[in-house]
Amino acid sequence: MADSANTPIDFYFDFSSPYGYLMAEKIDALAARYGRSVTWHPVLLGIIFQATGSRPPVVGASSKASYMFHDFARSARHMGIPYNMPSRFPLPTQNAARAFYWLAGQDIALAKQFALAVYRAFFVADRDISAPETVLEIAAEFGVDRDKLGAALQSPEIKARLKDEVDAALQAGVFGSPHLIIDGEAFFGADRLPQIEHWLESGGF
Amino acid sequence: MADSANTPIDFYFDFSSPYGYLMAEKIDALAARYGRSVTWHPVLLGIIFQATGSRPPVVGASSKASYMFHDFARSARHMGIPYNMPSRFPLPTQNAARAFYWLAGQDIALAKQFALAVYRAFFVADRDISAPETVLEIAAEFGVDRDKLGAALQSPEIKARLKDEVDAALQAGVFGSPHLIIDGEAFFGADRLPQIEHWLESGGF
Repeated sequence: MADSANTPIDFYFDFSSPYGYLMAEKIDALAARYGRSVTWHPVLLGIIFQATGSRPPVVGASSKASYMFHDFARSARHMGIPYNMPSRFPLPTQNAARAFYWLAGQDIALAKQFALAVYRAFFVADRDISAPETVLEIAAEFGVDRDKLGAALQSPEIKARLKDEVDAALQAGVFGSPHLIIDGEAFFGADRLPQIEHWLESGGF
Repeated sequence: MADSANTPIDFYFDFSSPYGYLMAEKIDALAARYGRSVTWHPVLLGIIFQATGSRPPVVGASSKASYMFHDFARSARHMGIPYNMPSRFPLPTQNAARAFYWLAGQDIALAKQFALAVYRAFFVADRDISAPETVLEIAAEFGVDRDKLGAALQSPEIKARLKDEVDAALQAGVFGSPHLIIDGEAFFGADRLPQIEHWLESGGF
């Protein structure tokens, strides 16, 4: 337990993932109750679905698709989290993810606050988080220099960093969002929170 | 609440569905705590997947498939339910489903006991529940006449009954297993048990 208590929980998510948003609102506080920290890894589900042959939840049967949209909102209510289905969904999220990694290189706590703000901008305020302008506006609310971040979003270093992160996620077996790895054990989906708590509580079951 | 308390919960499942098994072990006791009864509807997922374009959980990415097999067993441990991954999976389940409907026509409580026994035969004892012989053996343990049931499995009436049940499930929007409908509200997956309890407790949220 002493060893694993020092190992951060890995949390993989896409900024366009409703269940990723729900997990993001809960995982740090849950982990902290068991003395654990969380490393956040925004990834690009489009690439991950292509590489793994996995699929997004809202595909196929219309009865399933309409259920999923209903379940996004109901799961949020169940968890006490504000939620409004975005009018444009899903969206490309590379700008938000690149901004996260650039901010994380300077201040990891700020990067997480930014990430939560991006999620809330999308899933509460219905803002177009695919646009660089929106990403810069959200970051500016935290005092981030817009020009510096704007330049970073176009830099080869940050583009390569995101590509490396997605590759590393695939190597780690990530096939969807949210996907967590706790001491080598994978948990997929916001609905696995009770199992995650059970796992942290008991050191595995 | 008085009206809905008299409406049974509809529980759709396939006898080859691991999460259907986990739900079957829990739903009647949970419903009873809130004064509700449950109507069980075994269905054939093969037909439902074809009709809806939906997919079974274990398809696609090998990383996802191996996660799913791991999650079946872990979810069972989390819920305190015995589980051994069957050596043949998935299996055709029309014989078990036909036997259920024939028994349900005579004694609904017996039919549910039989259904749970079929699930345990498959997901604990690794028996081949696709074989008519296994289905007859399991029913015989409850004192059911093997010859009568054996004849019923081949009767046009029971075949038509199962077909009608699958059609009705599709009409009701069922796209997977387990799928529950409570006062018009759909819940998909054993992992929705906490939301189902929340729903029964509060009369909707």
